[in-house]
Amino acid sequence: MVILGIDPGLSLTGWGVVEAVSRDKMKALKYGCIKTAPPSLLIERLQLVHDKLQSLIDIYKPDVVAIEEIFFLKAARSVAAVGQSRGAILLTISMNKIPLFEYNPRSVKMALTGYGSADKHQMQHMVKTFLKLKEIPKPDDTADALAMAICHINTMRW
Amino acid sequence: MVILGIDPGLSLTGWGVVEAVSRDKMKALKYGCIKTAPPSLLIERLQLVHDKLQSLIDIYKPDVVAIEEIFFLKAARSVAAVGQSRGAILLTISMNKIPLFEYNPRSVKMALTGYGSADKHQMQHMVKTFLKLKEIPKPDDTADALAMAICHINTMRW
Repeated sequence: MVILGIDPGLSLTGWGVVEAVSRDKMKALKYGCIKTAPPSLLIERLQLVHDKLQSLIDIYKPDVVAIEEIFFLKAARSVAAVGQSRGAILLTISMNKIPLFEYNPRSVKMALTGYGSADKHQMQHMVKTFLKLKEIPKPDDTADALAMAICHINTMRW
Repeated sequence: MVILGIDPGLSLTGWGVVEAVSRDKMKALKYGCIKTAPPSLLIERLQLVHDKLQSLIDIYKPDVVAIEEIFFLKAARSVAAVGQSRGAILLTISMNKIPLFEYNPRSVKMALTGYGSADKHQMQHMVKTFLKLKEIPKPDDTADALAMAICHINTMRW
């Protein structure tokens, strides 16, 4: 099973493709971060996020997508930016008819560390451990995306 | 020139198609409102907004789209809902390669009434007057979408 984890954003959208044959056997196939920035217009940035995501889907043919739930603690301007990117991402996933699973930050922390209030460092350490990586993936958005994929693997029934 | 005005939302997305041959000669071809609601999932609702919008584009072949800028005065939860729908809408417009114009509420009010703080009633009255309609379009979202299209007509150079 191939899982595409996504940490949605407008400037930075982390992504990670993880293959799993069981809860104990998983490996990262590829991971990275989609970057968009001014002076590109918002609509151009959304198209760019779509294009990169579509090419990932075409290459890795994920069976499922795991994405972070949108949360409301940030400033409205930030929610608006993330929200619009997330809308374009969800539409892309829908058009590809890929099953979608949404996880909130607490669930992801529980699934990776057994502790719902784990900090960023603990989470990144667990991502590195689960995927047997030599280094913690950078930027944080990429590590968060891989955490989404691992969360799905650790949450689903095998 | 055919203008598609959009007032983006998740539960209600107003739309209005207006044809104009000059600033003084405009008529509404069709207008309405895309409605989505639970128990449909968010991703299904975004797909529905996309599908309806795509069918409008296929039927009316708009030369431009005029859409309301997202604003940040509302609660973050509301911004998240509107934002995600708006992201799906912008991606749909981009994929159809239709020029996009964004207007903030103040500009729309100025363009229709000459007064940037016009109230909802004054705006709806001007929509009815400009388009020579017998009644004010309902719901408000539909009237707002027509106001977007009229704003573009009154703002562009002829």
